[in-house]
Amino acid sequence: MRMYDIILKKRNGGELTKEEIEFFVNGYTRGEIPDYQVSALLMAIYFQKMSKKETADLTMAMVNSGETIDLSAIEGIKVDKHSTGGVGDKTTLVLGPIVAAAGAPVAKMSGRGLGHTGGTIDKLESIRGFSAEMTREQFIDNVNRVKLAVGGQTADLAPADKKLYALRDVTGTVDNVSLIASSIMSKKIASGANSIVLDVKTGTGAFMKTVDDSFELAKEMVDIGTSLNRNTVAVISDMDQPLGFAVGNALEVKEAIDTLMGNGPEDLLELCMVLGSYMLVLAEKAKNTDEARAVLEKTIKNGSALEKLKEFVSAQGGDVSLIDNPDMLPGAKYQVEVKARIDGYISKIVASEIGLAALVLGAGRETKESAIDHSVGIVIKEKVGAYVRKGDTIAVIHTNDLEKAKDAEERIHEAYNITENKPEKRPLIFGIVTKDGIQRF
Amino acid sequence: MRMYDIILKKRNGGELTKEEIEFFVNGYTRGEIPDYQVSALLMAIYFQKMSKKETADLTMAMVNSGETIDLSAIEGIKVDKHSTGGVGDKTTLVLGPIVAAAGAPVAKMSGRGLGHTGGTIDKLESIRGFSAEMTREQFIDNVNRVKLAVGGQTADLAPADKKLYALRDVTGTVDNVSLIASSIMSKKIASGANSIVLDVKTGTGAFMKTVDDSFELAKEMVDIGTSLNRNTVAVISDMDQPLGFAVGNALEVKEAIDTLMGNGPEDLLELCMVLGSYMLVLAEKAKNTDEARAVLEKTIKNGSALEKLKEFVSAQGGDVSLIDNPDMLPGAKYQVEVKARIDGYISKIVASEIGLAALVLGAGRETKESAIDHSVGIVIKEKVGAYVRKGDTIAVIHTNDLEKAKDAEERIHEAYNITENKPEKRPLIFGIVTKDGIQRF
Repeated sequence: MRMYDIILKKRNGGELTKEEIEFFVNGYTRGEIPDYQVSALLMAIYFQKMSKKETADLTMAMVNSGETIDLSAIEGIKVDKHSTGGVGDKTTLVLGPIVAAAGAPVAKMSGRGLGHTGGTIDKLESIRGFSAEMTREQFIDNVNRVKLAVGGQTADLAPADKKLYALRDVTGTVDNVSLIASSIMSKKIASGANSIVLDVKTGTGAFMKTVDDSFELAKEMVDIGTSLNRNTVAVISDMDQPLGFAVGNALEVKEAIDTLMGNGPEDLLELCMVLGSYMLVLAEKAKNTDEARAVLEKTIKNGSALEKLKEFVSAQGGDVSLIDNPDMLPGAKYQVEVKARIDGYISKIVASEIGLAALVLGAGRETKESAIDHSVGIVIKEKVGAYVRKGDTIAVIHTNDLEKAKDAEERIHEAYNITENKPEKRPLIFGIVTKDGIQRF
Repeated sequence: MRMYDIILKKRNGGELTKEEIEFFVNGYTRGEIPDYQVSALLMAIYFQKMSKKETADLTMAMVNSGETIDLSAIEGIKVDKHSTGGVGDKTTLVLGPIVAAAGAPVAKMSGRGLGHTGGTIDKLESIRGFSAEMTREQFIDNVNRVKLAVGGQTADLAPADKKLYALRDVTGTVDNVSLIASSIMSKKIASGANSIVLDVKTGTGAFMKTVDDSFELAKEMVDIGTSLNRNTVAVISDMDQPLGFAVGNALEVKEAIDTLMGNGPEDLLELCMVLGSYMLVLAEKAKNTDEARAVLEKTIKNGSALEKLKEFVSAQGGDVSLIDNPDMLPGAKYQVEVKARIDGYISKIVASEIGLAALVLGAGRETKESAIDHSVGIVIKEKVGAYVRKGDTIAVIHTNDLEKAKDAEERIHEAYNITENKPEKRPLIFGIVTKDGIQRF
């Protein structure tokens, strides 16, 4: 088998066999096939697309390129949740406790990565003492005991994906739906999930900017999951403005605690209910989403979800008193109010701009080596649809550096579109994709 | 400017600017832009094509990536002839003398390269003492004095083309007409030609297998030449069987001498007349091709073309007595007759197979280091359209090694298609492309 022939076959519109896909994935991972042949193939894939079968084969070839995590020692069906990434997305902090409180095991393995704010582990580290470092045995034991654990991602999962993604990133071959879907799914499958609930974000703050593209990606991922016998459901949710109000690590933990106490933002709570319902159904802890939702709502009302958060934080060394007194979480020195410059309706809050403002303040990592400042961030005060007058506070910047705050403030003004006419209401959930089909709301 | 943006622009169907093309060609030549980005761009070009303007800009960027040869010290209009490559193609050996004898300067710079037989210089080196090594000044002086010189290609012409071609060769991005055309034209323009006559071969022994593809390539090259103010004409000629009868270095020199003496194969003579006529017209030594043809025919009849060959060979140190006695040129030890295995009409002689047979005998180079055996080769005895009976000699192998001859003999049988029905006659010249349009015969 020769890489040259594989490139030519795909260039000419042929369907690659499982063997051909394994040949190039393994050859590339081992460094036997050069970058320049792989990038030519990726560009050919961009133009000629991949079939469902090719996409599933590519996913498994990437899974098999590295370690896979065996979670079989955890009792019950392991449902993983994955978000395609958004701004102010603290769903895992809420979902983990409510789903675990409802009896389904939540075994979350999380990377740190780059981003506007830290990842789930970074956020949780706002809580003094909390640690995600543990052995595989401790992790599994915690899930079996508490039903919820968040561990650091140390295994070398899908190294082929890592290498391919880095190449795609510099060769203009990122935005092909098969390549995006297989990249996400390979990591989920390698990390041992039986079933997967995907939160596919759509809008200015998301990887997929249009609703149609988001549905296409969702469908592709559900198809991969189905081909590979992983029960998979995708929820398409709005990211045309930040989720909830808080953007920043400790600020988001606080908002998650508020939500578990029943005082959270409406959109965050609703999204967690929808995602959580599917998780419970896939975990076979509820017959349908209506029943699941009732169970989840109860975990908040009766305080069991908040209790679960404490139990989980305590099991991982965190100071539980901070959950009872969230005001004791790391706070920034200064709070700077951002005021509307004109009268009008807020028609859009470009989420990616808000994310960049948070990054400027120090809430996220620009490079792998960057240190995160848990205390800083932004709290949105007025969201899309609100009418504001010039001088009204639209957001509050939490900062330890007033110079950086100026830069962030300008970005926040950039993010807010204020118009004369009331904007049309945009739904929070655009639809659901399951193996049985697409449901658009 | 970023290579990433250039890839994306082309991928999305945009037209690259001159600056963008220069950026990637120069960056790649200098090793600043990595292979893997360039191969992704080449694949995007394969799918999105290049406009006439982009193709001309790419050609000039490749010309400017290295040295260019200044032939301005040569008197008159310098017309270069270029063939896209065929088997038994000794046209330069005939064209040089007849065109020079008609008064137009022929300044031929030739590489050695790989191939079924050697290049023009290798063929000429069959003549004892002949050398293509000389200084630039000697070369120019020879052209001014004799009107004909053949020099070795020592300058670093269009290094970007060399590097890009090597990459295309391993990434499935060779067969795009803009890339092929700009590759050929960049070398011609860098070597200083004012005007160019292209011999675009078509058929089984050519790079372009179909007539339509050959016209497309011809048109593309003529368009490049026209954009860059080089008067360019392309002749589309048959390569569905070898040109003339001889394939091999000394054998081809002998056939060229025969042709200059008026005893050459019909197809070879005709092609040289057509190509030579356009060369004379572009050199402004004839008003039209009819007039040019009459002049060229006269150079053969009155012996001035043969005299020109002697003058030229002598000026480059060759033993002229071999031209008067071509039987003294290097000869092989054995001649092996290849006999028809069945009765029938010869319907095809796959030229590339004959070429491979010659290569097996040692007539060409498989690697840069291979030595050429000037004496070996193949002489075709019966060409397409002839009726042969089982046992008739169809070709003669000239060899110094009877083992290799067996291999060559099988290849020759492979090459010859013998059928019951008389094949339709295929034209020698399919048409002409000039800046004024396409003429199909």
